[in-house]
Amino acid sequence: MNQQYPSTLLEKAVNEFSKLPGIGRKTAMRLVLHLLRQETSAVETFGNAMIVLKNEVKYCKVCHNISDTEVCRICANPLRDASTVCVVENIRDVMAVEGTQQFRGLYHVLGGVISPMDGVGPGDLQIESLIDRVARSGINEVILALSSTMEGDTTNFYIYRKLEKTGVKLTVIARGISIGDELEYTDEVTLGRSIVNRIPFNQ
Amino acid sequence: MNQQYPSTLLEKAVNEFSKLPGIGRKTAMRLVLHLLRQETSAVETFGNAMIVLKNEVKYCKVCHNISDTEVCRICANPLRDASTVCVVENIRDVMAVEGTQQFRGLYHVLGGVISPMDGVGPGDLQIESLIDRVARSGINEVILALSSTMEGDTTNFYIYRKLEKTGVKLTVIARGISIGDELEYTDEVTLGRSIVNRIPFNQ
Repeated sequence: MNQQYPSTLLEKAVNEFSKLPGIGRKTAMRLVLHLLRQETSAVETFGNAMIVLKNEVKYCKVCHNISDTEVCRICANPLRDASTVCVVENIRDVMAVEGTQQFRGLYHVLGGVISPMDGVGPGDLQIESLIDRVARSGINEVILALSSTMEGDTTNFYIYRKLEKTGVKLTVIARGISIGDELEYTDEVTLGRSIVNRIPFNQ
Repeated sequence: MNQQYPSTLLEKAVNEFSKLPGIGRKTAMRLVLHLLRQETSAVETFGNAMIVLKNEVKYCKVCHNISDTEVCRICANPLRDASTVCVVENIRDVMAVEGTQQFRGLYHVLGGVISPMDGVGPGDLQIESLIDRVARSGINEVILALSSTMEGDTTNFYIYRKLEKTGVKLTVIARGISIGDELEYTDEVTLGRSIVNRIPFNQ
Protein backbone atom coordinates (compact mmCIF):
# COMPACT_ATOMS: atom_id res chain seq x y z
CA MET A 1 0.00 0.00 0.00
CA ASN A 2 1.60 3.23 -1.16
CA GLN A 3 0.40 5.72 1.40
CA GLN A 4 0.64 9.41 0.61
CA TYR A 5 2.08 11.12 3.66
CA PRO A 6 0.43 14.42 4.55
CA SER A 7 3.86 15.94 5.27
CA THR A 8 7.31 15.30 3.82
CA LEU A 9 8.88 16.03 7.24
CA LEU A 10 6.68 13.32 8.73
CA GLU A 11 7.59 10.98 5.89
CA LYS A 12 11.31 11.60 6.49
CA ALA A 13 11.01 10.86 10.21
CA VAL A 14 9.02 7.68 9.50
CA ASN A 15 11.61 6.63 6.91
CA GLU A 16 14.41 7.07 9.45
CA PHE A 17 12.65 4.98 12.09
CA SER A 18 11.72 2.24 9.64
CA LYS A 19 15.42 1.74 8.83
CA LEU A 20 15.87 0.33 12.34
CA PRO A 21 15.90 -3.47 12.64
CA GLY A 22 12.48 -4.96 13.39
CA ILE A 23 10.63 -1.65 12.92
CA GLY A 24 8.16 -1.65 10.04
CA ARG A 25 6.44 1.41 8.57
CA LYS A 26 3.34 1.12 10.76
CA THR A 27 5.38 0.87 13.96
CA ALA A 28 7.64 3.71 12.77
CA MET A 29 4.55 5.87 12.24
CA ARG A 30 3.28 5.05 15.72
CA LEU A 31 6.66 5.94 17.30
CA VAL A 32 6.95 9.21 15.36
CA LEU A 33 3.42 10.29 16.29
CA HIS A 34 4.14 9.39 19.92
CA LEU A 35 7.24 11.60 19.92
CA LEU A 36 5.33 14.36 18.15
CA ARG A 37 2.93 14.50 21.10
CA GLN A 38 5.82 15.06 23.53
CA GLU A 39 7.31 18.43 24.53
CA THR A 40 9.87 19.94 22.15
CA SER A 41 12.56 19.59 24.82
CA ALA A 42 11.83 15.87 25.20
CA VAL A 43 12.07 15.35 21.43
CA GLU A 44 15.39 17.24 21.35
CA THR A 45 16.70 15.14 24.24
CA PHE A 46 15.72 12.01 22.32
CA GLY A 47 17.29 13.06 19.02
CA ASN A 48 20.45 14.42 20.61
CA ALA A 49 21.06 11.45 22.93
CA MET A 50 21.85 9.28 19.93
CA ILE A 51 23.94 11.94 18.14
CA VAL A 52 25.98 12.67 21.28
CA LEU A 53 26.53 8.96 21.87
CA LYS A 54 27.74 8.46 18.29
CA ASN A 55 30.06 11.47 18.41
CA GLU A 56 31.47 11.05 21.90
CA VAL A 57 31.50 7.34 22.59
CA LYS A 58 34.91 5.78 23.15
CA TYR A 59 36.05 2.20 22.99
CA CYS A 60 38.21 0.96 25.85
CA LYS A 61 41.87 0.76 24.74
CA VAL A 62 42.29 -2.50 26.64
CA CYS A 63 39.14 -4.57 26.08
CA HIS A 64 37.38 -2.60 23.27
CA ASN A 65 34.15 -2.39 25.25
CA ILE A 66 32.08 0.79 24.88
CA SER A 67 33.25 3.36 27.41
CA ASP A 68 33.08 7.02 28.39
CA THR A 69 36.80 7.00 29.13
CA GLU A 70 40.02 5.77 27.50
CA VAL A 71 40.00 2.71 29.74
CA CYS A 72 36.58 1.34 30.70
CA ARG A 73 35.16 1.06 34.23
CA ILE A 74 35.67 -2.70 34.32
CA CYS A 75 39.31 -2.63 33.17
CA ALA A 76 40.04 0.30 35.53
CA ASN A 77 38.51 -1.45 38.54
CA PRO A 78 41.35 -2.66 40.82
CA LEU A 79 38.99 -5.15 42.50
CA ARG A 80 38.59 -7.16 39.29
CA ASP A 81 40.81 -10.16 38.61
CA ALA A 82 43.10 -9.00 35.78
CA SER A 83 44.55 -12.49 35.30
CA THR A 84 41.34 -13.88 33.79
CA VAL A 85 39.98 -12.57 30.48
CA CYS A 86 36.58 -13.53 29.06
CA VAL A 87 36.44 -13.26 25.25
CA VAL A 88 33.00 -12.19 23.96
CA GLU A 89 31.51 -11.18 20.65
CA ASN A 90 29.98 -7.80 21.52
CA ILE A 91 29.09 -5.45 24.34
CA ARG A 92 25.65 -7.03 24.80
CA ASP A 93 27.46 -10.21 25.76
CA VAL A 94 29.55 -8.26 28.29
CA MET A 95 26.31 -6.99 29.83
CA ALA A 96 24.81 -10.49 29.80
CA VAL A 97 27.82 -11.97 31.63
CA GLU A 98 27.93 -9.01 34.04
CA GLY A 99 24.23 -9.60 34.71
CA THR A 100 25.02 -13.07 36.08
CA GLN A 101 27.35 -11.55 38.74
CA GLN A 102 29.39 -14.76 38.44
CA PHE A 103 32.50 -13.31 36.80
CA ARG A 104 35.01 -10.97 38.41
CA GLY A 105 37.69 -10.99 35.68
CA LEU A 106 38.11 -8.70 32.66
CA TYR A 107 36.71 -8.91 29.13
CA HIS A 108 37.93 -8.78 25.57
CA VAL A 109 35.33 -7.71 23.01
CA LEU A 110 36.08 -9.15 19.57
CA GLY A 111 33.47 -7.09 17.73
CA GLY A 112 32.01 -10.14 15.98
CA VAL A 113 32.98 -13.65 14.96
CA ILE A 114 34.79 -15.01 11.91
CA SER A 115 32.16 -15.42 9.19
CA PRO A 116 33.36 -15.87 5.60
CA MET A 117 29.70 -15.72 4.45
CA ASP A 118 29.41 -12.17 5.81
CA GLY A 119 32.94 -11.24 4.72
CA VAL A 120 34.24 -11.06 8.29
CA GLY A 121 37.79 -12.36 8.61
CA PRO A 122 40.16 -12.47 11.62
CA GLY A 123 41.60 -9.10 10.58
CA ASP A 124 38.20 -7.43 11.09
CA LEU A 125 38.11 -8.54 14.74
CA GLN A 126 40.10 -7.64 17.84
CA ILE A 127 42.03 -10.93 17.76
CA GLU A 128 45.52 -9.50 17.19
CA SER A 129 45.02 -7.20 20.20
CA LEU A 130 43.96 -10.21 22.30
CA ILE A 131 47.19 -12.01 21.41
CA ASP A 132 49.20 -8.86 22.24
CA ARG A 133 47.36 -8.57 25.51
CA VAL A 134 48.10 -12.16 26.47
CA ALA A 135 51.77 -11.70 25.51
CA ARG A 136 52.17 -8.45 27.46
CA SER A 137 50.04 -8.73 30.60
CA GLY A 138 49.97 -11.36 33.31
CA ILE A 139 46.96 -13.26 31.99
CA ASN A 140 46.61 -16.82 33.28
CA GLU A 141 43.32 -17.84 31.74
CA VAL A 142 41.39 -16.92 28.61
CA ILE A 143 37.71 -17.97 28.71
CA LEU A 144 36.07 -18.28 25.28
CA ALA A 145 32.43 -17.22 25.61
CA LEU A 146 31.28 -17.02 22.00
CA SER A 147 27.97 -18.19 20.55
CA SER A 148 27.59 -21.91 20.05
CA THR A 149 27.40 -21.59 16.25
CA MET A 150 29.61 -22.65 13.37
CA GLU A 151 31.07 -19.12 13.28
CA GLY A 152 31.62 -19.09 17.04
CA ASP A 153 33.34 -22.47 16.91
CA THR A 154 35.53 -21.37 13.98
CA THR A 155 36.58 -18.27 15.93
CA ASN A 156 37.26 -20.35 19.04
CA PHE A 157 39.50 -22.64 17.00
CA TYR A 158 41.34 -19.73 15.35
CA ILE A 159 42.06 -18.16 18.76
CA TYR A 160 43.13 -21.57 20.12
CA ARG A 161 45.66 -21.96 17.28
CA LYS A 162 47.02 -18.48 17.93
CA LEU A 163 47.33 -18.93 21.69
CA GLU A 164 48.23 -22.62 22.11
CA LYS A 165 52.00 -21.94 22.20
CA THR A 166 51.77 -19.11 24.76
CA GLY A 167 50.97 -21.56 27.56
CA VAL A 168 47.93 -19.53 28.69
CA LYS A 169 45.10 -21.66 30.08
CA LEU A 170 42.30 -21.69 27.49
CA THR A 171 38.75 -22.62 28.57
CA VAL A 172 35.35 -22.49 26.94
CA ILE A 173 32.05 -21.84 28.73
CA ALA A 174 29.99 -24.95 29.44
CA ARG A 175 27.42 -26.06 26.87
CA GLY A 176 24.56 -28.14 28.17
CA ILE A 177 20.94 -28.21 29.08
CA SER A 178 19.50 -24.83 30.06
CA ILE A 179 18.24 -24.51 33.63
CA GLY A 180 14.53 -25.38 33.57
CA ASP A 181 14.67 -27.24 30.26
CA GLU A 182 13.14 -30.69 29.95
CA LEU A 183 15.43 -33.48 28.79
CA GLU A 184 13.09 -34.88 26.15
CA TYR A 185 12.88 -31.56 24.30
CA THR A 186 16.64 -30.89 24.29
CA ASP A 187 18.33 -31.30 20.90
CA GLU A 188 20.54 -34.37 20.66
CA VAL A 189 23.82 -32.49 20.07
CA THR A 190 23.38 -30.46 23.27
CA LEU A 191 22.25 -33.53 25.22
CA GLY A 192 25.17 -35.55 23.83
CA ARG A 193 27.69 -32.88 24.81
CA SER A 194 26.16 -32.54 28.27
CA ILE A 195 26.69 -36.27 28.85
CA VAL A 196 30.26 -36.26 27.53
CA ASN A 197 31.11 -33.17 29.58
CA ARG A 198 29.42 -34.32 32.79
CA ILE A 199 30.87 -32.95 36.03
CA PRO A 200 31.14 -34.34 39.57
CA PHE A 201 27.89 -34.01 41.46
CA ASN A 202 28.13 -31.66 44.43
CA GLN A 203 24.81 -30.56 45.87
CA MET B 1 18.03 -7.42 36.45
CA ASN B 2 19.90 -4.22 37.17
CA GLN B 3 22.49 -4.10 34.42
CA GLN B 4 25.46 -1.83 34.81
CA TYR B 5 25.94 0.03 31.53
CA PRO B 6 29.55 0.37 30.40
CA SER B 7 28.90 4.00 29.36
CA THR B 8 26.53 6.66 30.69
CA LEU B 9 26.06 8.03 27.15
CA LEU B 10 24.95 4.58 26.06
CA GLU B 11 22.66 4.34 29.05
CA LYS B 12 21.08 7.72 28.22
CA ALA B 13 20.42 6.71 24.62
CA VAL B 14 18.91 3.39 25.73
CA ASN B 15 16.74 5.24 28.28
CA GLU B 16 15.43 7.55 25.56
CA PHE B 17 14.52 4.68 23.24
CA SER B 18 12.88 2.67 25.99
CA LYS B 19 10.46 5.56 26.65
CA LEU B 20 8.86 4.81 23.28
CA PRO B 21 5.66 2.75 23.36
CA GLY B 22 6.24 -0.98 22.94
CA ILE B 23 10.04 -0.68 23.19
CA GLY B 24 11.58 -2.45 26.19
CA ARG B 25 15.15 -2.06 27.43
CA LYS B 26 16.50 -5.01 25.44
CA THR B 27 14.99 -3.78 22.18
CA ALA B 28 16.17 -0.24 22.96
CA MET B 29 19.70 -1.58 23.43
CA ARG B 30 19.52 -3.43 20.11
CA LEU B 31 18.31 -0.28 18.29
CA VAL B 32 20.99 1.93 19.88
CA LEU B 33 23.79 -0.52 19.03
CA HIS B 34 22.45 -0.77 15.48
CA LEU B 35 22.58 3.02 15.11
CA LEU B 36 26.04 3.10 16.67
CA ARG B 37 27.30 0.87 13.85
CA GLN B 38 26.05 3.35 11.23
CA GLU B 39 27.99 6.32 9.82
CA THR B 40 27.99 9.52 11.91
CA SER B 41 26.05 11.31 9.14
CA ALA B 42 23.33 8.64 9.18
CA VAL B 43 22.96 8.94 12.95
CA GLU B 44 22.72 12.73 12.66
CA THR B 45 20.10 12.39 9.94
CA PHE B 46 18.14 10.06 12.21
CA GLY B 47 18.32 12.28 15.29
CA ASN B 48 17.62 15.49 13.42
CA ALA B 49 14.69 14.14 11.36
CA MET B 50 12.60 13.92 14.52
CA ILE B 51 13.77 17.28 15.93
CA VAL B 52 13.10 19.07 12.62
CA LEU B 53 9.68 17.44 12.36
CA LYS B 54 8.77 18.53 15.89
CA ASN B 55 10.00 22.10 15.34
CA GLU B 56 8.71 22.72 11.84
CA VAL B 57 5.56 20.66 11.50
CA LYS B 58 2.37 22.59 10.89
CA TYR B 59 -1.24 21.62 11.32
CA CYS B 60 -3.59 22.44 8.44
CA LYS B 61 -5.74 25.49 9.33
CA VAL B 62 -8.75 23.85 7.73
CA CYS B 63 -8.71 20.18 8.70
CA HIS B 64 -5.98 20.07 11.42
CA ASN B 65 -4.12 17.30 9.64
CA ILE B 66 -0.31 17.35 9.83
CA SER B 67 1.06 19.45 6.99
CA ASP B 68 4.19 21.19 5.68
CA THR B 69 2.09 24.21 4.70
CA GLU B 70 -0.65 26.39 6.22
CA VAL B 71 -3.29 24.45 4.30
CA CYS B 72 -2.58 20.76 3.69
CA ARG B 73 -2.20 19.05 0.31
CA ILE B 74 -5.61 17.41 0.55
CA CYS B 75 -7.51 20.60 1.45
CA ALA B 76 -5.58 22.55 -1.21
CA ASN B 77 -6.31 20.01 -3.95
CA PRO B 78 -8.99 21.47 -6.30
CA LEU B 79 -9.84 17.98 -7.58
CA ARG B 80 -11.15 16.88 -4.17
CA ASP B 81 -14.85 17.18 -3.34
CA ALA B 82 -15.02 20.02 -0.79
CA SER B 83 -18.70 19.38 -0.07
CA THR B 84 -18.01 16.10 1.78
CA VAL B 85 -16.06 16.03 5.03
CA CYS B 86 -14.94 12.85 6.76
CA VAL B 87 -14.44 13.27 10.54
CA VAL B 88 -11.61 11.14 11.93
CA GLU B 89 -9.79 10.80 15.22
CA ASN B 90 -6.17 11.28 14.13
CA ILE B 91 -3.85 11.51 11.17
CA ARG B 92 -3.29 7.76 11.07
CA ASP B 93 -7.00 7.42 10.30
CA VAL B 94 -6.63 9.96 7.47
CA MET B 95 -3.87 7.79 6.03
CA ALA B 96 -5.96 4.63 6.50
CA VAL B 97 -8.93 6.13 4.61
CA GLU B 98 -6.61 7.58 1.94
CA GLY B 99 -5.11 4.10 1.58
CA THR B 100 -8.48 2.72 0.48
CA GLN B 101 -8.62 5.19 -2.46
CA GLN B 102 -12.39 5.18 -1.99
CA PHE B 103 -12.83 8.72 -0.69
CA ARG B 104 -12.31 11.92 -2.67
CA GLY B 105 -13.68 14.43 -0.14
CA LEU B 106 -11.88 16.35 2.60
CA TYR B 107 -11.13 15.46 6.23
CA HIS B 108 -11.55 16.92 9.68
CA VAL B 109 -9.11 15.62 12.29
CA LEU B 110 -10.57 15.82 15.81
CA GLY B 111 -7.33 14.96 17.61
CA GLY B 112 -9.02 12.29 19.72
CA VAL B 113 -12.42 11.28 21.02
CA ILE B 114 -14.40 12.36 24.07
CA SER B 115 -13.18 10.24 26.96
CA PRO B 116 -14.03 11.36 30.50
CA MET B 117 -11.87 8.52 31.85
CA ASP B 118 -8.79 10.06 30.20
CA GLY B 119 -9.91 13.61 30.98
CA VAL B 120 -10.65 14.42 27.32
CA GLY B 121 -13.71 16.65 26.90
CA PRO B 122 -15.24 18.23 23.77
CA GLY B 123 -13.17 21.39 24.39
CA ASP B 124 -9.93 19.43 23.92
CA LEU B 125 -10.95 18.35 20.43
CA GLN B 126 -11.45 20.18 17.12
CA ILE B 127 -15.25 19.99 17.39
CA GLU B 128 -15.96 23.73 17.57
CA SER B 129 -13.89 24.25 14.41
CA LEU B 130 -15.91 21.50 12.68
CA ILE B 131 -19.15 23.30 13.52
CA ASP B 132 -17.68 26.61 12.25
CA ARG B 133 -16.54 24.88 9.10
CA VAL B 134 -20.00 23.44 8.43
CA ALA B 135 -21.59 26.85 9.10
CA ARG B 136 -19.19 28.75 6.82
CA SER B 137 -18.38 26.48 3.86
CA GLY B 138 -20.66 24.67 1.42
CA ILE B 139 -20.52 21.31 3.13
CA ASN B 140 -23.35 18.93 2.22
CA GLU B 141 -22.32 15.81 4.05
CA VAL B 142 -20.36 15.04 7.22
CA ILE B 143 -19.23 11.41 7.46
CA LEU B 144 -18.43 10.24 10.98
CA ALA B 145 -15.55 7.75 10.80
CA LEU B 146 -14.59 7.28 14.45
CA SER B 147 -13.67 4.05 16.20
CA SER B 148 -16.56 1.75 17.08
CA THR B 149 -16.01 2.15 20.83
CA MET B 150 -17.97 3.74 23.65
CA GLU B 151 -15.84 6.88 23.32
CA GLY B 152 -16.28 6.96 19.54
CA ASP B 153 -20.05 6.57 19.88
CA THR B 154 -20.20 9.30 22.54
CA THR B 155 -18.29 11.66 20.25
CA ASN B 156 -20.53 10.76 17.32
CA PHE B 157 -23.59 11.61 19.41
CA TYR B 158 -22.09 14.88 20.66
CA ILE B 159 -21.35 15.98 17.09
CA TYR B 160 -24.83 14.87 15.98
CA ARG B 161 -26.43 17.07 18.67
CA LYS B 162 -24.30 20.02 17.60
CA LEU B 163 -25.02 19.62 13.88
CA GLU B 164 -28.59 18.31 13.75
CA LYS B 165 -30.12 21.78 13.33
CA THR B 166 -27.75 22.87 10.56
CA GLY B 167 -29.46 20.59 8.05
CA VAL B 168 -26.15 19.05 6.94
CA LYS B 169 -26.42 15.39 5.96
CA LEU B 170 -24.79 13.33 8.72
CA THR B 171 -23.67 9.76 7.97
CA VAL B 172 -21.60 7.16 9.79
CA ILE B 173 -19.32 4.58 8.17
CA ALA B 174 -20.85 1.11 7.89
CA ARG B 175 -20.28 -1.36 10.72
CA GLY B 176 -20.54 -5.01 9.85
CA ILE B 177 -18.66 -8.19 9.17
CA SER B 178 -15.10 -7.66 7.99
CA ILE B 179 -14.28 -8.93 4.51
CA GLY B 180 -12.97 -12.49 4.91
CA ASP B 181 -14.50 -13.01 8.37
CA GLU B 182 -16.52 -16.10 9.13
CA LEU B 183 -20.06 -15.57 10.38
CA GLU B 184 -19.88 -17.98 13.28
CA TYR B 185 -16.90 -16.17 14.85
CA THR B 186 -18.40 -12.68 14.54
CA ASP B 187 -19.56 -11.11 17.80
CA GLU B 188 -23.33 -10.88 18.14
CA VAL B 189 -23.53 -7.08 18.30
CA THR B 190 -21.70 -6.71 14.98
CA LEU B 191 -23.73 -9.53 13.41
CA GLY B 192 -26.98 -8.03 14.72
CA ARG B 193 -26.14 -4.59 13.32
CA SER B 194 -25.14 -6.08 9.99
CA ILE B 195 -28.57 -7.72 9.70
CA VAL B 196 -30.48 -4.59 10.72
CA ASN B 197 -28.42 -2.44 8.33
CA ARG B 198 -28.58 -4.86 5.39
CA ILE B 199 -28.33 -3.27 1.93
CA PRO B 200 -29.75 -4.21 -1.48
CA PHE B 201 -27.74 -6.96 -3.16
CA ASN B 202 -26.05 -5.82 -6.33
CA GLN B 203 -23.35 -8.08 -7.65
